[in-house]
Amino acid sequence: MSKKDFVPQEIARRIEQGNRRALARAITLVESAHPTHRAQAAELLEALGSNRQAIRIGMSGTPGVGKSTFIESFGLQLVESGLRVAVLAVDPSSARSGGSILGDKTRMDHLSRHPSAFIRPSPSQTHLGGVARRTREATALCEAAGFDVVLIETVGVGQSETMVGEMADLFVLLLAPAGGDELQGVKRGIMEMADLILINKADGDLKAAASRTCADYAGALRLMRKRAQDPEGFPKALMVSAIESNGLSQSWIEMQSLVDWRKQNGVWQSTRADQNAFWFNAELRHALLTRLENDPEAVAASAAMQKAIRAGQVAPSVAAERVVRSFLGPDKK
Amino acid sequence: MSKKDFVPQEIARRIEQGNRRALARAITLVESAHPTHRAQAAELLEALGSNRQAIRIGMSGTPGVGKSTFIESFGLQLVESGLRVAVLAVDPSSARSGGSILGDKTRMDHLSRHPSAFIRPSPSQTHLGGVARRTREATALCEAAGFDVVLIETVGVGQSETMVGEMADLFVLLLAPAGGDELQGVKRGIMEMADLILINKADGDLKAAASRTCADYAGALRLMRKRAQDPEGFPKALMVSAIESNGLSQSWIEMQSLVDWRKQNGVWQSTRADQNAFWFNAELRHALLTRLENDPEAVAASAAMQKAIRAGQVAPSVAAERVVRSFLGPDKK
Repeated sequence: MSKKDFVPQEIARRIEQGNRRALARAITLVESAHPTHRAQAAELLEALGSNRQAIRIGMSGTPGVGKSTFIESFGLQLVESGLRVAVLAVDPSSARSGGSILGDKTRMDHLSRHPSAFIRPSPSQTHLGGVARRTREATALCEAAGFDVVLIETVGVGQSETMVGEMADLFVLLLAPAGGDELQGVKRGIMEMADLILINKADGDLKAAASRTCADYAGALRLMRKRAQDPEGFPKALMVSAIESNGLSQSWIEMQSLVDWRKQNGVWQSTRADQNAFWFNAELRHALLTRLENDPEAVAASAAMQKAIRAGQVAPSVAAERVVRSFLGPDKK
Repeated sequence: MSKKDFVPQEIARRIEQGNRRALARAITLVESAHPTHRAQAAELLEALGSNRQAIRIGMSGTPGVGKSTFIESFGLQLVESGLRVAVLAVDPSSARSGGSILGDKTRMDHLSRHPSAFIRPSPSQTHLGGVARRTREATALCEAAGFDVVLIETVGVGQSETMVGEMADLFVLLLAPAGGDELQGVKRGIMEMADLILINKADGDLKAAASRTCADYAGALRLMRKRAQDPEGFPKALMVSAIESNGLSQSWIEMQSLVDWRKQNGVWQSTRADQNAFWFNAELRHALLTRLENDPEAVAASAAMQKAIRAGQVAPSVAAERVVRSFLGPDKK
């Protein structure tokens, strides 16, 4: 957007009125790393006046587990019950793997065409920090646009789950029926983040295996330490079939009961507050380091010292102190 | 040291003459996080004129493997052959566990009393970044003091190994004989760092088990990808008995042949250069962030915004940008 056309209050108003084109363009804006766009994004975020809150659901699952099919079925059920649903995909690797960028909407064919749904594929960006900010700010825009549910989908690679866990109100782990007691490559940390484990594909030939897998995970969850943010019975394992649309209503009922309990017990707000503080600290570090990296004099000073540093003629801490001192100027001690 | 008594050139001269008291006091200085001491440490490091290089040996092993006994035996053999040996312990947990702070010297009774040996226990500091700088700078002081070998001992916890790997010329992993083909809790990453795996306790009843374990690791090492920094046959697995002083000469011969090859092939210098560049970048980030954290105005600005941040009334990135802008002043873009 050129500077002349950019009137943040006007864009904010359109987003809050539910204008999908304004929302889509605003998400494009927060995805940009360009300084002008970052400044505009900041103005826009500040111009948002609503206090609307969606239920932010983080969702993960290893490839092949049927995540897109699940989101399609689950999302359709929500929009058909009158809710507005946004889907944001987080895939730090999508720039390389390619597939998912074009694939997301195709695989969620019915949902993507529903007027109450909004699906936004991953931006082609590999930097996890950039993806984190974009997803967080896109979520805020979707909330301002009045969506009731924001599904934040991620792939089972570990780091992105942790990131999504730091911005979601609840976290759902989707698993496939396993033969025997395999662990399906799910990292322990991701399992500990889950509020709900859904064993998908509980249909046809896999139904018996799904039942066993579900019982295994239910048993494993019972052995885990009770968390302060959980009512009795959570985290919980359930069977679902995205293809047959079985267990989806029950999943939504469980999610709602968890949300209700957390809101009543102050956990909802305190978790969001802690998440905001966490991201502020992360952004603070990032912003400061970026300034240093983009400062021509600091870059030149570092480059000039590289030879002495590499030769061990100046201690790394001493060289660093010099660069920082010249960057910050004589006033800052 | 008070400012009046502090003459860096004089201290540097005494260290380079082999004055142990000056070395010990200088290490205490680089261990301090106090700003005055940091400034003095920087002056001292700059005043060191020598280009002496020791062989920096990183050494790790899980508890119970006989690390202290090994260092005692191995170190004694080196000093008795005319070399000067310094031992630095890295134990980020020592402040909590307590034991090792007093234990180090006691457990290396003979070595610690030898005039050519210098043993420095872990400082009571838990911050890994601080431990990294202290160990690096203490190593530089030991090199200036003319030690031929600096043994940097660490415990098998993962993060500290990686850190020591970034400042050592070669890395030795000490293991105990295992029953069957257990992995002894050694992380794959640590095994991949090792130049030499020594199976200790190859004596008495454990000799046969040590032989099997050694063969297992030798096999595992052969399956690993060839590294650019290795001559033929490395990394290597050997059996040793610290108690019976068996295999120690052979270990030292292997280490020397590795060092010679690396020096002849330019690997030694390029590794040190890369390590210095790595630490410069780490120190640069650390120094800048520390300034922000210690800036009263930035701290006050962050605190003043906390309520709005936690309530979600201001986006984390927007709040961070404001704090950084006011910290850096209007000149810095």
